[in-house]
Parts: sequence; C-alpha cells; structure tokens
Amino acid sequence: MSYLKKIKLRTEYQGMHDVTEEVKKAVAESGVQEGLCVINCTHTTAGIIITSFWDKRGHVDFQDEMDKLIPMRYDYLHDYDTPTDAAGHIKSALAGTGITLIVTGGKAMLGSSQGVLFCEFDGPRDRQFAVKVVPDP
Amino acid sequence: MSYLKKIKLRTEYQGMHDVTEEVKKAVAESGVQEGLCVINCTHTTAGIIITSFWDKRGHVDFQDEMDKLIPMRYDYLHDYDTPTDAAGHIKSALAGTGITLIVTGGKAMLGSSQGVLFCEFDGPRDRQFAVKVVPDP
Amino acid sequence: MSYLKKIKLRTEYQGMHDVTEEVKKAVAESGVQEGLCVINCTHTTAGIIITSFWDKRGHVDFQDEMDKLIPMRYDYLHDYDTPTDAAGHIKSALAGTGITLIVTGGKAMLGSSQGVLFCEFDGPRDRQFAVKVVPDP
Repeated sequence: MSYLKKIKLRTEYQGMHDVTEEVKKAVAESGVQEGLCVINCTHTTAGIIITSFWDKRGHVDFQDEMDKLIPMRYDYLHDYDTPTDAAGHIKSALAGTGITLIVTGGKAMLGSSQGVLFCEFDGPRDRQFAVKVVPDP
Repeated sequence: MSYLKKIKLRTEYQGMHDVTEEVKKAVAESGVQEGLCVINCTHTTAGIIITSFWDKRGHVDFQDEMDKLIPMRYDYLHDYDTPTDAAGHIKSALAGTGITLIVTGGKAMLGSSQGVLFCEFDGPRDRQFAVKVVPDP
Repeated sequence: MSYLKKIKLRTEYQGMHDVTEEVKKAVAESGVQEGLCVINCTHTTAGIIITSFWDKRGHVDFQDEMDKLIPMRYDYLHDYDTPTDAAGHIKSALAGTGITLIVTGGKAMLGSSQGVLFCEFDGPRDRQFAVKVVPDP
C-alpha cells in the first residue's frame, strides 16, 4: 500500500533545512521495499533540492549564489507582496518544488553524500512538504 | 487504470502559459483518487515549472530573469538554428521539462498559490505536453 | 514487473554524456509497455538533464553557461574539498539529479530532439546513475 505523510517545519529567513532523516523515516514507515518516493512542497517561495548534507556552510553558499543570480531588486513587475516574494518565486521555480527518488531494498536510493534539503527562499514561515511512497505494482 | 492525455497549445515568443486547469481536468478525467501525476513536455526550448498563478506580471519577471541569466548572445558554440535556440536549450535544461505531482483525494496536491506553467523559451510555436495520471497499485 | 538498472560511466572534467541510448535500452529490457521511467544519479556534483542531443557544441555551451552563472571562485564558505566541488554542488542542485519520463507503447516518451544527458560538474570521476522502469498497476 502507498503511504502519504505531511511534514511541517518552521523556517527562518532563507534557511536551509536538511530533511533527509524525515524522508528516510517516511520510507521506513511505509514498509515499501521496491517503489518510488515523491517529495513535494506546496509553496511558491520554497524548494526541494538534493545536495551534500555534510557541509552546512555549503548550504549557505547555495542561498548566497541564488541571491546573486536572482537579486532581491525593487523593480520586478510582480504586483503583489514584496520584492523578496518576487525573487523567491523565481528561485523556487528554478530550484524546483519536488524530487522523485527510487526506493530499493526498503530504502530511498541516495548517494553517500546526498541529502534532501528544504530551501526557504523567503521566510520566516510555517511550511510543509509531503512525502509519498508508492510500492511497485 | 492509468490515464494519458496530450494537450496542444500555440505559444507566442517567450510566452508563459498557465496550464493548471488542464492538469486539474486531466486528473479529474482519470478518475484516480490516490496516485501520481507526471507532466512532461517533449521540447528542448520549453519547460514546465511550478510558480504562483496569481501574478501574471510575475511570469514576465521569470522570463526576464531567465534572459538575464542566459542572454541571447551570438557567440554560443551551438551549430544549428539561431541564438534564441541556443539560449532556449540552456533555459529549458535549467527550468526542467517535467514535474511530478502527488494525487490525493482525487486531486493533484498543489498549494493554494501553486500553478503549473508551460514556459516557451523560443516561439512562437505549436507545442504540446503530456499529463499521465497513475493510480496507486 | 518493475526493472532497475545501474549504469556506470567514466567522466572527464565537466563532461557531458549523452545517455539517451542507455535509457532507451533499459526501457526496452524492462518489457514495460505503459508506465514511468525514473532516472537518478547518486552524486552531488553531477546532474541529469534533458536537452537536444543533436548539437554536441551546444552541450559545451551548457557547461560554459553554468560556469558563468556559478563561477569556480575561491571564496565559497564550503568547508571541504575544492572550489570546483563547492561550485559543483550548486550546479548539481540547480540542474537536478533526476528526471521522470512517461513510458508509452514500450518506449520512453521523448521529443524528436530530446536526449538525456549526464552532466559532470567536477570530474574526472567514476560515476553511476540508475534507471527504474515501473509498469502501470
């Protein structure tokens, strides 16, 4: 049977949250041995990426580079909210709001350095993401 | 049973097309209550992203920022077609040509602001994308 | 029945590897007629993208643009390894480490120009990626 779990988190401004353990736990709870694991967040100024979980300062680099690429300018056309929000939408669209992992041997197939990171491109906010684990037919 | 639908659209130059309603309709037509929904376009100068559907001018910001990041220069190595095409390939690869959504309660799980956008990085062109809805086993 | 294959490759520095044929072969070997195909690499300085397979020089453009967007600077906060590694993590997170394709009629649904590319953002290295093909229930 498939398994769907919603996980809440509280972010700080442009925080990076390592959610690898939450994802691994959801896969274990699902009991699925072979299948797929889909992770999605339901926000437009946040993202889900895979990157090394080892280097916390590397996570700051990621946000810093995103800021350089898509600066929080005041001249976006964007009608609502703030310039942070306008830049956050673009960052979120580029980083992506979801990833799909392969499940094998009862575990999500992740490399030895790979972690799943929830990226806050605005914040601080109450956020959530969903983990769905589907067994093979 | 799974459900596969191909949807055609006509784009203008660098147009952003909100296809959220088409995706929702395909999920409804599939009759799937719990499952996955995969959306893919089959082009190399277009993309499928998730962003806020509220702010039409924010969609222009997205294309403007993509143009700044990957300018339509004349010195790409790219052998064929036009500089628009060369830049479009890179934009498409970065934005991504597909997304996977979770289906629950007969609906695609999308946040209150999330829309599915077809991004034309060249155009005007005749385009298409596919929506596949797969029920849980 | 689902099908899981791991494919090894040896990369050169910032090489682009067209793995479209390997993906097509895995789908054929799976015997799946209708389903999904998930392609993931398990590295944090590599990526999996879709782009035109026609233009080999366009693949060099992709790496060149990624270098311009995320330069191999010496002032990343990143604690471990090299500046190449620091930049590679960010490139990998942005390009993405996986894609999901629709399988129909026994084939991965790819456009006439679309290829699947393994992107080395560091290297040279021994690398691998996985292809999983899941039939519809």
